[in-house]
Amino acid sequence: MHYQPRPEDLMFLQHSVLQLPEALAALPPFAEVDADLMSQVLQEAGRFVGEVVAPLNRDGDEIGCRFDVQTGAVHTPPGFADAYRALVDGGWPALAAAVDDGGQGLPAVLEASLYEWLSAANHGFTMAPGLLHGAYECLKKHGDDVLRARYLAEIASGRTLATMCLTESQAGSDLGLARTRAVPQADGSLRISGEKIFISGGEHDLTDNIVHLVLVRLPDAPAGPKGLSLALVPKLLPDGTRNAAHCTRIEEKMGLHGSPTCAMRFDDATGWLVGEPGQGLGAMFVMMNAARLHVALQGIGLLDAAWQKADAYARERRQMRAPLRPASRGPQDSADLLIEHPAMRRILDTQRAWIDGARLLAYRTAQQLDAAKHAADPKARERAQRWCSFITPVLKAACSRQAFDGSSECLQVFGGHGYIREWGIEQVLRDARITMIYEGTNEIQAIDLLVRKVLPDAGAAFAACLLELRDELDASRDNEADAQRRMAQLRYIGTAVAMAAQADPQLPYEVADDYLRLVMITLLTWSWARIERTAGPDDARWAAPAQAFRRWVLPEFDLRLGMIKRACEQVQQAAAGAAPSLARG
Amino acid sequence: MHYQPRPEDLMFLQHSVLQLPEALAALPPFAEVDADLMSQVLQEAGRFVGEVVAPLNRDGDEIGCRFDVQTGAVHTPPGFADAYRALVDGGWPALAAAVDDGGQGLPAVLEASLYEWLSAANHGFTMAPGLLHGAYECLKKHGDDVLRARYLAEIASGRTLATMCLTESQAGSDLGLARTRAVPQADGSLRISGEKIFISGGEHDLTDNIVHLVLVRLPDAPAGPKGLSLALVPKLLPDGTRNAAHCTRIEEKMGLHGSPTCAMRFDDATGWLVGEPGQGLGAMFVMMNAARLHVALQGIGLLDAAWQKADAYARERRQMRAPLRPASRGPQDSADLLIEHPAMRRILDTQRAWIDGARLLAYRTAQQLDAAKHAADPKARERAQRWCSFITPVLKAACSRQAFDGSSECLQVFGGHGYIREWGIEQVLRDARITMIYEGTNEIQAIDLLVRKVLPDAGAAFAACLLELRDELDASRDNEADAQRRMAQLRYIGTAVAMAAQADPQLPYEVADDYLRLVMITLLTWSWARIERTAGPDDARWAAPAQAFRRWVLPEFDLRLGMIKRACEQVQQAAAGAAPSLARG
Repeated sequence: MHYQPRPEDLMFLQHSVLQLPEALAALPPFAEVDADLMSQVLQEAGRFVGEVVAPLNRDGDEIGCRFDVQTGAVHTPPGFADAYRALVDGGWPALAAAVDDGGQGLPAVLEASLYEWLSAANHGFTMAPGLLHGAYECLKKHGDDVLRARYLAEIASGRTLATMCLTESQAGSDLGLARTRAVPQADGSLRISGEKIFISGGEHDLTDNIVHLVLVRLPDAPAGPKGLSLALVPKLLPDGTRNAAHCTRIEEKMGLHGSPTCAMRFDDATGWLVGEPGQGLGAMFVMMNAARLHVALQGIGLLDAAWQKADAYARERRQMRAPLRPASRGPQDSADLLIEHPAMRRILDTQRAWIDGARLLAYRTAQQLDAAKHAADPKARERAQRWCSFITPVLKAACSRQAFDGSSECLQVFGGHGYIREWGIEQVLRDARITMIYEGTNEIQAIDLLVRKVLPDAGAAFAACLLELRDELDASRDNEADAQRRMAQLRYIGTAVAMAAQADPQLPYEVADDYLRLVMITLLTWSWARIERTAGPDDARWAAPAQAFRRWVLPEFDLRLGMIKRACEQVQQAAAGAAPSLARG
Repeated sequence: MHYQPRPEDLMFLQHSVLQLPEALAALPPFAEVDADLMSQVLQEAGRFVGEVVAPLNRDGDEIGCRFDVQTGAVHTPPGFADAYRALVDGGWPALAAAVDDGGQGLPAVLEASLYEWLSAANHGFTMAPGLLHGAYECLKKHGDDVLRARYLAEIASGRTLATMCLTESQAGSDLGLARTRAVPQADGSLRISGEKIFISGGEHDLTDNIVHLVLVRLPDAPAGPKGLSLALVPKLLPDGTRNAAHCTRIEEKMGLHGSPTCAMRFDDATGWLVGEPGQGLGAMFVMMNAARLHVALQGIGLLDAAWQKADAYARERRQMRAPLRPASRGPQDSADLLIEHPAMRRILDTQRAWIDGARLLAYRTAQQLDAAKHAADPKARERAQRWCSFITPVLKAACSRQAFDGSSECLQVFGGHGYIREWGIEQVLRDARITMIYEGTNEIQAIDLLVRKVLPDAGAAFAACLLELRDELDASRDNEADAQRRMAQLRYIGTAVAMAAQADPQLPYEVADDYLRLVMITLLTWSWARIERTAGPDDARWAAPAQAFRRWVLPEFDLRLGMIKRACEQVQQAAAGAAPSLARG
């Protein structure tokens, strides 16, 4: 079966729970946006994704991308080029781009919804358009007039695709180790030489031209990250000739075979500086929050794809008797539907708790991305920026991890059939695994959150961020009061870590992952409190995952809190010279 | 890098911690067994696995098995046939087979060690010999004189390989739904017709003959599991002609490409009954505990393979500065080794905590398999049988799951390189995923443990089993007393579930997985208490995983205990007609 977007679910979350149409209409560029318009876009996006993109997913995996050693060309899987043309013709890549740049100027949450579905339907295909948004924002903000005139509308529309060329074989998470050189020429251009790896879409047959944004080192640049500049290097030069930027191989990967991961060689290739010398990392990361949010959405989408497959299978496959006679058992049935087995229901409802809870957070974050740009009040912009800064690493890491772990749970529903390619569920696992790594590994997200963002002011800014959520809750309702209590505990443990870190600077690095998980579970309590209040107790569509959340997801809160607490206590005891005890571990 | 067995680790666990040479020598067939002999076998097995089997692993995955549609032949990957011949020539398959059947009559723990390493080195290859042991035991116990004379020594030696043909497309976990027919003939043979799927090694080029053990239904057999009988169906009939048992395709799988997963068609194939009519499931499952233990060992081996790769990578790859200046930082190093980063150390030490802790349990179980057969005292045999019955489903499920989850953690150490085939770590994940499914899915293991074994006597027999472990602990040591306390809590929660199950028969099915995890964590506290007592606090090889166990693994105990407790309370409250509250979920 192919993935089938369900616009009604997103509309419930975006309109009824989050009331996004009202919130967005308050931002000047979206004064015309209303629920009808948003619904219409979702309906059309859902149709496009389900009919055009989803059916190509299996060939994308099985046939994959092919590299022609003779010509250096990369052939994408059957149907991808046509589907990509349809995507561009439909104006989908430019959905949220500025009207001035040829875009439709719609809110980021609609783009987010589109990409969640695209990723669910066909992650490999989605990598191609997924990368143009970062390039568009980067060029818009840091490119000079000439570059913007030449490339901005091309990229915004998707007529030209873009890459980010960061990684080198010795420089992965640590981009400061990058060596690719750029030598300025008399005409203001650069000559660029070096090798980059792991370049998604470095070469393909979807568009004629490809624009590479390349991290380079100018002559005499200092070592480390401050010596990095950003260069724009097109595949085709403005005069139509081929630039000396070539794909030398594509990687054999665990999954994501629909997206070519290229090694790129730049041989005195022509390029131009984007932004100031030595400001390369900053320019490249202008869109970091949006890019990380997109990875979170990929995770949500992929998990929903796994859930859809498992749910459908569980509703048609009969194996063994359920412990209680279910209504679905006919007189001829010697076995019951998998969905009637408690262990299977638990798996399915728990994944829905993750998907829908995380969706609420992701859509709120998308709205905050817009608010950070467009809110009239500078304080509101600042608050929105703060939200994005704290919450995106949490969503990136937690949603990508759940995409993998939860898909693995869904695979389990299929028994032996889950391990066979035919059913497509194992592809979801393989495709999803990369989301835990790219755009900063999940370990780096956790350190970014705790060490770089929460601890420097001992959690004060983050507490302010949580306070906003807290104020949206109604303490007279049990579950909302519970969510508030957990936010307070989160605040407390942040302070405890900040204190313990003074005695042992390694501690925060060790428990960063636990802390990030703790934050995610706390955020999900907010999500489910909000969803339950809106949906009421009688709609099983929402009541079942709400219950699964409390029973099977929420207990991780105490686990993580306890682990961090004990780690802090051990550090304090050691600092106080206390005698070793069992509790020290 | 290829997997490298480390015999010294196994010797420490088997000899120093478990004192297996002494325990085994007390069993009549192993009176000659001593530590020297066991060490010698381990050393030789390690050499064979490392030199002959491990180097074929990548081709096994990349090239895999090929099905020839014209001839129905299956070609195994390059080198597999030669390596298999060397395995048979070395006498390895018959290591633990009875001397009377041409075997070496050595203890099961040595066979277990061999298979742990074989699986770590090359899981796909290992599937072939891995299946002969069950067939050997089944035939030895249930076959008549003619069949035993014809096949027993052949199978014991590995000169003929065997399969278990259980699954049909409509009958997976629920074998009672199987339909394959067997019609008795005047000469005492059977004519067998039907289709079986997921048959590991159903066809290959490793041995001339293949013996299939097939679950069949005799004419007029009742529906359901009690109507199933077992038939032996050879590929080549005794006169050398080809039997009508053919492979019709091999499955495209997520991993394990080195092992052909065959769909088999029986077209009036000739076979013979093994055991009594209607006793097929029982005969097939005679070796269930041993087979499940082998899956647990596969899990342990695969996780060790992932750990070896990640550990080696972490000791040579430099990325970013560690929070504290490590001794390994040279004057030219602008980045530190991954192993110096706390998050990476945590991943590696935590996996070692699982590997070595689980090893101790698996080796103890292997010894108990022998004790269950060979102990002079019938009470001792019964105790050993009880241990195997309770502990094997726990090890099967927990070790297979950790193989997958922990390998995924290890993959994370590689960053983007982990997703590339070249490094081999992603293969471990793909190969490991099947262990959570076959030999009974992990959900079925959990139900087997809790619903079928623990609850019927409200946990009394299981408590007796735990008491043996408890008595091996020294309450004057903090960590051993802690392990004892957890055993008591485990006993208590078993009783609570038994009571709650009377009010809600679905409850045990819902929390079975939590219960199994709780048992595993408890068992690991025993393992690490024993290891620490033997190793002492100063040997980092054991002290680092011991600490990781307490800090990062053990906290799951409270998580699972809490989840089960709350589920029980909710059931009791609902039964008492209490008003709904937040705690009910």
